[in-house]
Amino acid sequence: MRRPIGFRPNGIITFTSDFGTDDSYVAEVQGAILRIAPDARVVDVTHAVPPQDIRTGAFHLMRAVAAFPAGTVHLAVVDPGVGTGRRAVVMQTGAGHVLVGPDNGLLSWAAGPRAVPREWARHDVVPPPRSRTFHGRDLFGPVAAALAAGLVAPEECGPAVRDPVVLPWPRARRTHGGWSGEVLVVDRFGNVIVGIPGDRLRLGDGTPVRVEVAGRVHEAVAGLYVHGAPLVVHEDSSGWTEVAVPGGRAEERLGVRPGARVTIRWT
Amino acid sequence: MRRPIGFRPNGIITFTSDFGTDDSYVAEVQGAILRIAPDARVVDVTHAVPPQDIRTGAFHLMRAVAAFPAGTVHLAVVDPGVGTGRRAVVMQTGAGHVLVGPDNGLLSWAAGPRAVPREWARHDVVPPPRSRTFHGRDLFGPVAAALAAGLVAPEECGPAVRDPVVLPWPRARRTHGGWSGEVLVVDRFGNVIVGIPGDRLRLGDGTPVRVEVAGRVHEAVAGLYVHGAPLVVHEDSSGWTEVAVPGGRAEERLGVRPGARVTIRWT
Amino acid sequence: MRRPIGFRPNGIITFTSDFGTDDSYVAEVQGAILRIAPDARVVDVTHAVPPQDIRTGAFHLMRAVAAFPAGTVHLAVVDPGVGTGRRAVVMQTGAGHVLVGPDNGLLSWAAGPRAVPREWARHDVVPPPRSRTFHGRDLFGPVAAALAAGLVAPEECGPAVRDPVVLPWPRARRTHGGWSGEVLVVDRFGNVIVGIPGDRLRLGDGTPVRVEVAGRVHEAVAGLYVHGAPLVVHEDSSGWTEVAVPGGRAEERLGVRPGARVTIRWT
Repeated sequence: MRRPIGFRPNGIITFTSDFGTDDSYVAEVQGAILRIAPDARVVDVTHAVPPQDIRTGAFHLMRAVAAFPAGTVHLAVVDPGVGTGRRAVVMQTGAGHVLVGPDNGLLSWAAGPRAVPREWARHDVVPPPRSRTFHGRDLFGPVAAALAAGLVAPEECGPAVRDPVVLPWPRARRTHGGWSGEVLVVDRFGNVIVGIPGDRLRLGDGTPVRVEVAGRVHEAVAGLYVHGAPLVVHEDSSGWTEVAVPGGRAEERLGVRPGARVTIRWT
Repeated sequence: MRRPIGFRPNGIITFTSDFGTDDSYVAEVQGAILRIAPDARVVDVTHAVPPQDIRTGAFHLMRAVAAFPAGTVHLAVVDPGVGTGRRAVVMQTGAGHVLVGPDNGLLSWAAGPRAVPREWARHDVVPPPRSRTFHGRDLFGPVAAALAAGLVAPEECGPAVRDPVVLPWPRARRTHGGWSGEVLVVDRFGNVIVGIPGDRLRLGDGTPVRVEVAGRVHEAVAGLYVHGAPLVVHEDSSGWTEVAVPGGRAEERLGVRPGARVTIRWT
Repeated sequence: MRRPIGFRPNGIITFTSDFGTDDSYVAEVQGAILRIAPDARVVDVTHAVPPQDIRTGAFHLMRAVAAFPAGTVHLAVVDPGVGTGRRAVVMQTGAGHVLVGPDNGLLSWAAGPRAVPREWARHDVVPPPRSRTFHGRDLFGPVAAALAAGLVAPEECGPAVRDPVVLPWPRARRTHGGWSGEVLVVDRFGNVIVGIPGDRLRLGDGTPVRVEVAGRVHEAVAGLYVHGAPLVVHEDSSGWTEVAVPGGRAEERLGVRPGARVTIRWT
């Protein structure tokens, strides 16, 4: 086992939420961050997580964390339990990132197995939130700022949480002549990202495959853009299996939404 | 009366508009800002103000200003009168912020009663706009940049405006057994923000209340998330009264839009 | 002929794409940029270019470039040919900007006639992309970062491309008593931007004009906001001809979309 990389803040804070961008909420969090860390740079991941959809938030956060340099603080707020007793947690990953958000599973995919969550208890650094409904502005944002500015180290944030909420990891299942997994997300292009690691299928370009959804079978071809192929299957840019329609929307072709089960079989 | 805090620019410019984010307009304003203030940091509040809806823009701007540190310049452009004789104004707030935008009421809620608007007259610093339709890029953005970079002080911008356009402040009315106010905004979650200051109602959690809209009465409960309650009422994160459906959209339940009148009564 | 202005990076990178903002893609590109150029500042132009619509992307990019100071790197990714043999190019404009993106015409309007495209060949600076579908993150973003950080100069990027893909420039045609052009874009306000340079028509305010679309004639008036005019025509903020409905949507009034032909005649 490798020793975890220590956390040296680089001043960057990524921000993932379900706040949308029509209201002032995202800016209010930024203002709260800049009050504490005037030099912090905030990079939006997305604020279009469907309201209170922890699973989609966890997926986008996981992808974003992988792209940023060590020393980044990742703030994530999809928080249906705001105002209840759910804990606020800080986690340092094995790769030298820090995650800040509610203890509801949102951070768990990005955290990986070696991260130790700590419950935020440093009210001397960031006092308890003054609002009951906007902990992004009044708690999580300031905590992320304090970490990014080096005012507090991740291991000083509070007691370790032994029973953090963890989202079930999307499980791919081996089936007769293929693999089955759930739709993790449908992206802007209508591409369907399926929870089957791309290296399970190991499809050589041009291999014919079958995509099965709800009992219906769709003929497809492995590869990026195959002339005449209505449906293609390949490993996406984050290592999952993607089903796409070149120039069209695979989501509509398959009639799927996140959570649906998709089976991909060699023919 | 307290003496106003002087303005010391911190290099941050917030930006509120109805430009949307589908076109290049927001970036063009940023480019114009960076030409004058290369080190300025621009934070978007929202660009999704409904086209030419000054009232919604004023509300989001007011919320954003409250979240940022003193020394911030707030640029706001919702400008149905562009190309007419409407004035361009700069206002320093009592709390050490500066607002820049058209004199059409957009800035008035954020400004507060002590701010003195000045008409922009420093054509030696920022020349008159070259376009007739895009003063965000050609006038307001550069003025905000000049203020953020310290090239000009708010009190040096031009003559005081004695008759600024002021939006009527949302008025809550005491009614039999409750308070009535107008819907200020419906947020991304479908929460209905009503122009009744939260401290008027002073609702203890669990108190039953009635929410009346257009003659229809909805039973509700005070508090954040009340088991079994279809509708809850609480003070929102900026001090107004919020009507929410836990996990749903209060906007749809009540059938309201901004401007509608809502009455909340103790039962 | 003027000598081109040399490129001195100012640390700013603009970013235009069709990635949308619902997924983590834009942030992943930013993370990849910040790994290479920790001090770069990324300004979003728009990520709402319709999927794979090179022409709309080219238009927004052209407008954005004109607004930024010399020394800016402009990253643009609308890339239907990702994974095929299309080239990755870097172009220095005559005005001291650098453009980075796929060689599919996307950069051509912003580049202008004097820019020389070079095919990216510096795999010692940025290695070949590891994904086959996300060259924004794995190639173009890092290349833009290397240029913004001064790790490589535009003229050192690789061999000149003699046959770059160039989008046909929108052509205005002189017609009987007026000019005809195609709709370049419909903006957020429903304004219709027509590919007729504003100085062709030279309309004095108040001049009556006719706007013809698909055989239908609409009466209009030249100027910004003309009392009682249902339709106005003026030169927009980037020098094209704009048809607008004060307080309404010209797009709906005319029933047009990008690519439609519009003729404007003096009456």
